[in-house]
Amino acid sequence: MVATRNPLNIGAAARAMANFGFGNLRVVNPYDVAFREARSAVGAAPLLAQAQEFSSVADAVADASLVVGTTSLGHRELHHPLRRLEYGARLMLRRLPRSPVALLFGSEKFGLSNDDLSHCHWLMRIPTVNRDLSMNLGQAVALCLYELARDPKAIASRPERIRPASAAENEQITALWREALRASGYVNPLTAGSTEEKLRRMIRRWNISARDAPVTLGMLRQILWKLGNQE
Amino acid sequence: MVATRNPLNIGAAARAMANFGFGNLRVVNPYDVAFREARSAVGAAPLLAQAQEFSSVADAVADASLVVGTTSLGHRELHHPLRRLEYGARLMLRRLPRSPVALLFGSEKFGLSNDDLSHCHWLMRIPTVNRDLSMNLGQAVALCLYELARDPKAIASRPERIRPASAAENEQITALWREALRASGYVNPLTAGSTEEKLRRMIRRWNISARDAPVTLGMLRQILWKLGNQE
Repeated sequence: MVATRNPLNIGAAARAMANFGFGNLRVVNPYDVAFREARSAVGAAPLLAQAQEFSSVADAVADASLVVGTTSLGHRELHHPLRRLEYGARLMLRRLPRSPVALLFGSEKFGLSNDDLSHCHWLMRIPTVNRDLSMNLGQAVALCLYELARDPKAIASRPERIRPASAAENEQITALWREALRASGYVNPLTAGSTEEKLRRMIRRWNISARDAPVTLGMLRQILWKLGNQE
Repeated sequence: MVATRNPLNIGAAARAMANFGFGNLRVVNPYDVAFREARSAVGAAPLLAQAQEFSSVADAVADASLVVGTTSLGHRELHHPLRRLEYGARLMLRRLPRSPVALLFGSEKFGLSNDDLSHCHWLMRIPTVNRDLSMNLGQAVALCLYELARDPKAIASRPERIRPASAAENEQITALWREALRASGYVNPLTAGSTEEKLRRMIRRWNISARDAPVTLGMLRQILWKLGNQE
């Protein structure tokens, strides 16, 4: 983070790093008060306490084999290839197993300077809709780290599939429900047959889960008991 | 956003919504001062000015056909299917063209209450590394909206491919470089042949871009001119 002024943003960045498992926070010429305030804030204290302070971008990125700058585009003329976060993160991940990669964030107001950018191999931008409205710095850091930690395979997985109720359970529910409707005078005796079919189909559409089936049955029995007692 | 207390978080959420093209901010029982402060803050003013205030979750989500709660898991016993953001966002996107979808965020300190959660069809969590360290609310909102706006196709695209220098340009650079090395006494005359080959291979590895080729040539010519003048 280069020339950060708002302590909340340094704290938010450190917290996002802890959230997504990144460990190496480096600050270049932070606004001193901001850095001290952020260090004393709750939350990501260990990461902030270990944060290294540098007086130049060159020193901060010295051990990195790939240096990526972030930009909100703004109106600056770009001298670097610019990549969308989705693609840029993939390039960074490819390099990471072999050697350290540095991701640079500029100040809240001005972003990275041309001098900062000259240390970068290429630039990355978060694909926002409105290019004139820059992102909040703490949010931008969180988004980049999320994309780096994101698991594309998680889209396909269905980690918590809901086990549906069995046909027998659904039929039990249908029977009790039908009884409750009868007891309450809902069913027109002339069309009782077709009503039962409609009811059966509807209860299948509800997709009651295996976990909810006994609860539903219990509720219906209680309702039936009450309906029986009223007669 | 339910029972939000920190005005910065409402402002950050509104800004992220503007960043990613979402338009309908609803707040349920916000801490009044927070909401007023957020409304008067710079940045996402239009979105905040249009934010609707509700006194119950039921009213706030009334027109939504799918209600998704967010959770940091914490230690609460979950009564809902829990999905990772990558997967949950896809389910939300599938529903969105047909009908409104509500995404619920709880208060900074306690998240969504069990009562709030009872309005949800399922829950979504951001895949953080450390489950005990919850995410900052403004960052969590930004991440969910980013995932909803994220373009999987952007990974494959190479929007700003760098056009490489031509073989002729590379050879010109090699020739000038060799001349500069000779003029500066670098080349051992006995092994000049193999040095030239090494030089040629190295310059190809540099992958000089078409844009940088003329600049590089200009620099080398200047160096050669100076070297010639010294003799």
